Amino acid sequence: MKIVIDGMGGDNAPMAPVEGACMAVKEYGIDIVITGEKDQLKAELSKYDCDKTKIEIVHTSQVITNDEKPVVAIRRKTDSSMVVALNMVKNKEADAMVSAGSTGALLSGGVFVIKRIKGISRPCICTAIPTMDGGVSLLSDTGANVDCDAQQLLDFAAMTNIYAKRVMNMEKPRVALANIGTEEGKGNDLVKTAFDLLKDRDDMNFIGNMETREILNGVCDVVVCDGFIGNIIVKTLEGTVLSLFKKIKESIMSSTKSKVGALLMKDSLRGLKDSLDYSSHGGAPFLGVEGGLIKAHGSSDARAIKNAIRQAIQFVDGNVVEEIRAYISSDQEKAENK
Amino acid sequence: MKIVIDGMGGDNAPMAPVEGACMAVKEYGIDIVITGEKDQLKAELSKYDCDKTKIEIVHTSQVITNDEKPVVAIRRKTDSSMVVALNMVKNKEADAMVSAGSTGALLSGGVFVIKRIKGISRPCICTAIPTMDGGVSLLSDTGANVDCDAQQLLDFAAMTNIYAKRVMNMEKPRVALANIGTEEGKGNDLVKTAFDLLKDRDDMNFIGNMETREILNGVCDVVVCDGFIGNIIVKTLEGTVLSLFKKIKESIMSSTKSKVGALLMKDSLRGLKDSLDYSSHGGAPFLGVEGGLIKAHGSSDARAIKNAIRQAIQFVDGNVVEEIRAYISSDQEKAENK
Repeated sequence: MKIVIDGMGGDNAPMAPVEGACMAVKEYGIDIVITGEKDQLKAELSKYDCDKTKIEIVHTSQVITNDEKPVVAIRRKTDSSMVVALNMVKNKEADAMVSAGSTGALLSGGVFVIKRIKGISRPCICTAIPTMDGGVSLLSDTGANVDCDAQQLLDFAAMTNIYAKRVMNMEKPRVALANIGTEEGKGNDLVKTAFDLLKDRDDMNFIGNMETREILNGVCDVVVCDGFIGNIIVKTLEGTVLSLFKKIKESIMSSTKSKVGALLMKDSLRGLKDSLDYSSHGGAPFLGVEGGLIKAHGSSDARAIKNAIRQAIQFVDGNVVEEIRAYISSDQEKAENK
Repeated sequence: MKIVIDGMGGDNAPMAPVEGACMAVKEYGIDIVITGEKDQLKAELSKYDCDKTKIEIVHTSQVITNDEKPVVAIRRKTDSSMVVALNMVKNKEADAMVSAGSTGALLSGGVFVIKRIKGISRPCICTAIPTMDGGVSLLSDTGANVDCDAQQLLDFAAMTNIYAKRVMNMEKPRVALANIGTEEGKGNDLVKTAFDLLKDRDDMNFIGNMETREILNGVCDVVVCDGFIGNIIVKTLEGTVLSLFKKIKESIMSSTKSKVGALLMKDSLRGLKDSLDYSSHGGAPFLGVEGGLIKAHGSSDARAIKNAIRQAIQFVDGNVVEEIRAYISSDQEKAENK
């Protein structure tokens, strides 16, 4: 298996991508291609000890930054570390790709370079939300598509269900719709229509509506919503956790008594904050394109990159793309037989 | 001034409404009508000491519960404590109303009994979110309208802006759109169109888009969104806070050391949890109907009811309904002069 890493993407590039690649070679024994400025990549690579015959450097002269307009950047910067990596996936020179670079550019690249799986009108981004029971809930879409129809929500559900089974090893993922009430008939027009599409599926374990009040309680494995709602959920969650811990810190500092108390509680509290940090729970797969595409968090360190590479491996081993194609053809057959 | 209280609405009725009414008479010197089963209300009233000449009991024989279909309940239960109170506002026998009963029924009652202000196609519910700096951000709509157009979002903004100034005494409320990015041009079609309507208003201090990551940081005074998004935000927030405190408690109980620590921190932590409980931050006004209508939380105690009565008083004193009418006519004039 061969995974291509965008060597210049992310806040800690090229250090983290190169070190992460070395860790992955050691741990998983796979082949890796790193795209980027060759002198920088070589200098980084020389710092680490691993089987260097399994790492290939492909020189690129450009870098796409977070400030650039995604579509423009992908179209113009054809010799960027990101576009060259995307082309390797497209041309089957690599099985999957990992990048910590611009999310927007990567999404555009997925659609315009790698291309959509035939029958999927909108690929989605899936974010793993760490839950209170130590597991994760997979939330799709979290920002790729801000205006959706119900068929697209059904596709997000089906693709994320496949990802949950094939990559996250969940046996019979519980699929729920993000909604403002649990009863059937709740919600806006989009969600009500999506409910009707989901409730009769025999290829998914649809458990109905879920109120976002429950999002951290691990009540389901896959949460389906459009990208606007998904992004609102993720950011409200993140903001609340950050604000709360900041306030707890302030409360602690307000008296000597509570300072002493906090000192005794430090380990418990720190573990909790880390366990809720969704950015540390692996990369976000981009589902619905003709290849594995894992977006690692922009601030990924080497370990996070290594974990994203592991996800890419599981994505390939799990035949996620083939499974999504099978979902599409099965639905098309059913439609034709009607 | 006369405020009517739904004496049978809420988990703690009729105790909390009656006690809250007595507290309000003492503290604000206003006249109060309580609707409900007269024997129960009289028995409750006899427990408290206040100027009883200022409290009138209007007997009603029915109660609307949370399980009933709102529209059906409002239409059929014409002798319920809620509908009789709504009719008193409609007939100007009371200046405003407070109820801790079913939100859905109260919304239906607002529209079908009290009626909308002419020119407002959709009234909204406004929820006060306590922020980390000790203030509040007013979020509208939080559930009355799950499918909205941009003009309706503009109306929510205008009405909440008026409420912020006239009831919350905010001088120049900062109005923002709930969005998934701060730059102009971000978001779905609805939000982008609403942005265009809001940006040229000279009657509002529109500060642009706000990411919901910032919701607790007090970066704005009024947050505008449709009722589906608003409800998702409020419930994600509430769920995160509850889950987090539950987890903190568990972390604490996991070791003797942290138990001792927690004991020392108890007061700081409890104060923090209370300060984030949006249900304790007064009632939610229902904006856009021909009268003051304050929804107190279902679990309101007497103090919460008294606070909701104070809001109702400020609503009347602030001429909120007249101000909303003025906003509508000013916009109609501008449209005609174009």
